[in-house]
Formats: sequence, structure tokens, C-alpha cells
Amino acid sequence: MSPQLRSVQTRTRILRAAVEQFTRFGYEATSVDEICIAAGVSKGAFYHHFQTKQALFLALLQEWVRELERNLTTIGKEIPWVPQRFERLAELLTRVFEQASGQAPMFLEFWYQATKDSTAWSVLLEPYHRFRSIFAEWIEEGIRQGSLKPTDATAAAATLVSLGVGLVLQVALEQQGTRWGDIPQAAVKLLLDGLSSSHP
Amino acid sequence: MSPQLRSVQTRTRILRAAVEQFTRFGYEATSVDEICIAAGVSKGAFYHHFQTKQALFLALLQEWVRELERNLTTIGKEIPWVPQRFERLAELLTRVFEQASGQAPMFLEFWYQATKDSTAWSVLLEPYHRFRSIFAEWIEEGIRQGSLKPTDATAAAATLVSLGVGLVLQVALEQQGTRWGDIPQAAVKLLLDGLSSSHP
Repeated sequence: MSPQLRSVQTRTRILRAAVEQFTRFGYEATSVDEICIAAGVSKGAFYHHFQTKQALFLALLQEWVRELERNLTTIGKEIPWVPQRFERLAELLTRVFEQASGQAPMFLEFWYQATKDSTAWSVLLEPYHRFRSIFAEWIEEGIRQGSLKPTDATAAAATLVSLGVGLVLQVALEQQGTRWGDIPQAAVKLLLDGLSSSHP
Repeated sequence: MSPQLRSVQTRTRILRAAVEQFTRFGYEATSVDEICIAAGVSKGAFYHHFQTKQALFLALLQEWVRELERNLTTIGKEIPWVPQRFERLAELLTRVFEQASGQAPMFLEFWYQATKDSTAWSVLLEPYHRFRSIFAEWIEEGIRQGSLKPTDATAAAATLVSLGVGLVLQVALEQQGTRWGDIPQAAVKLLLDGLSSSHP
């Protein structure tokens, strides 16, 4: 195995072990030592990849955000009709929700920790702004192609992101559920009905 | 001053001092001693009103929720036309957002603390369910009066609550802003357009 490949594998092992420990015991309560033991790596290897536990968490966050962004870019390229894009997005959200279940405490705790640290904070806020831009572009495109009615694209995009955040938070917080599976799709449909230029 | 009135005033003083301390220093970092000093009350007086710091926080939360619920009940009684009710709600949300600004860290931290405690947790989740019921009733009423089109009222209500939570969270988290003032109203308008039976 090449040293590069081994290094990538070590990094991935650390990230996976960290998610597991953070989810089970919380972010603050988990030490770098424990992550190293769970991942089966040395502390030297850990610090080769991440300067601090916070840097590790931010790397995790960035990977999630990048994956979501890659999905959005693919949807944007493959689906020209904007209302259909948002429907695909609702399906994507449903999967995100399934994954997020059980990780709410970790996120809440990290968000709280991040309020005390401006670097972590800007890393956390940046995806919101990026997703807002992507949705605003989609909405403008929809208005140009006539599938959406003329509207304030910035406000509509902020609404979509808020709705997404609110849904993720609620799904993650609910211990036993409402049939959440349907709600993201119903929510996006409602917003789409509001945005669409033609109504059946 | 009657002992009853004095007791109410003491309770109010404790609650106000607690909000201030939690907002400035965080929930965990604030001790009952510090709240007593800030409120100018004895520890005996504190424990006469609240068994624990958590009980105090839950009392705070319940007061906020009750005020919001009172407002919703008033809106429901005073405004028969359901779409107009939701417009009033958007105005109300704008005010809630102004108040919430700066208190995000306190809420995030408390939510996180509450994930470890099932009593606190159920107290936190209960308002979501209650607001969802109120909105579902409104939507059903709107469908009956013909102002809203037939739709899954439960899913639509969950969407509204998610949107509200997402907006509050984002507004509270943003340090310097987008013109958030407009967004709640735009968001509610979008959803209303999706729900409404007639489109201009």
C-alpha cells in the first residue's frame, strides 16, 4: 500500500471513530486519546491529520457539506426543469434526515461550543450562505424558464434553507416519530406550489 | 405590599436575572449563587421558587411558550379569515426574532443539556406538538371556509413549525445580518401562496 493511500485511510478511520464517539458520549466529553484508541491510531498519526479536536469536527462538517453540495450540483446539471429539481431535493433531504437521527445532541453541543469561537462559527455559517446562493440561482433560473413565478429569489432561498434547517433539527430532535418521511416532501411541495407559475 | 405580591415580584426578579446571566455567561457556567446575587435575593428565596437551576430554565421556557400561545389564541379569535391569521403570525415572528437575537448560545446549550435529561426533553418537545396542533386546526378551518385548498393539514402544520424553528435558529445564529426583518413575512407569504385556494 502506498504511503498516500495509507494516510487517506488513517484520516478516514479517525473521522469515522470520532463521529461514533461524539454521537455516543458528546463532543466535549470525548478526548483525542479516546478517538485514537477507537480508531486504532497513534496520537502522532492523529496530530499529523488534525491540529485539534475542533479542527477534526470542522473537517467532518466540511465533508458533509461538500457531499450535499456535490449532490446539489449534480441535480442542477441533470434536471433542467427547476420545480423537478426541488422535488429531487426533497428526496435527498429525506435521506439526510435518516442519517441525522441520533446525532442531534452532537450537533447542538458543537454549535454551542462554536458560539464561543469565531473561526468555528464562520465555518458553520458559511454553508448556510452557500446553500442560499445555490437556491437563489435555481429560483432565478426557474423564473427565467417560466416554471416559477416572479418572486424575491433571495427571500425565497432563505425560506428554503430555514425550512431545511428546521426540518433537520426537528427530525433529529424527535425521539419517536410522527411519520417524518412524508413531511419533507410535503413541505417542499407546499413551497413549490407557492413558487410555481402554473397551478393545476 | 402583600406577601403574595412580594413573592411574585421575587420570582420575576429571579427569572430576569437568570436570563441575563445565561445570555452573558452560558447556562452551565452560571451558578444558582450568581443568579441570587444578580437578582438580589437569598438562596432560601431562590429555592422557595425553583428546586433547581434546570427547573428555573424550564419555567422561563414555559413562560415564553405560554405568551406565544396566548398570542396565537388571540389571533385565532380575532381574525376569522385564516390566510390573514398567518400574515399576523409572520408579524409576530418578526418580533420574536428581534427578541431572540443574542440568546442563541443559551438556547443551543440548554437544548444540548436537555438531550441528557428526559424530563427537560419532554418539556422542550411539548410546545412543538402543541403549535403543530394549533396550526393544523387553523389549516383545517381554512379548508372548510374555502380560503385554503384541500391539503394534508398535519404535514402543512409540521412544515410551518419547521419553518418557524429554522427561521428562529438562523436569525439567532447570524451575527450580522441579511435583512432578516423581511424574510419571515416573505416565507409565510410563500407558504400561504402554496396553501391558498385562489391565486391572483
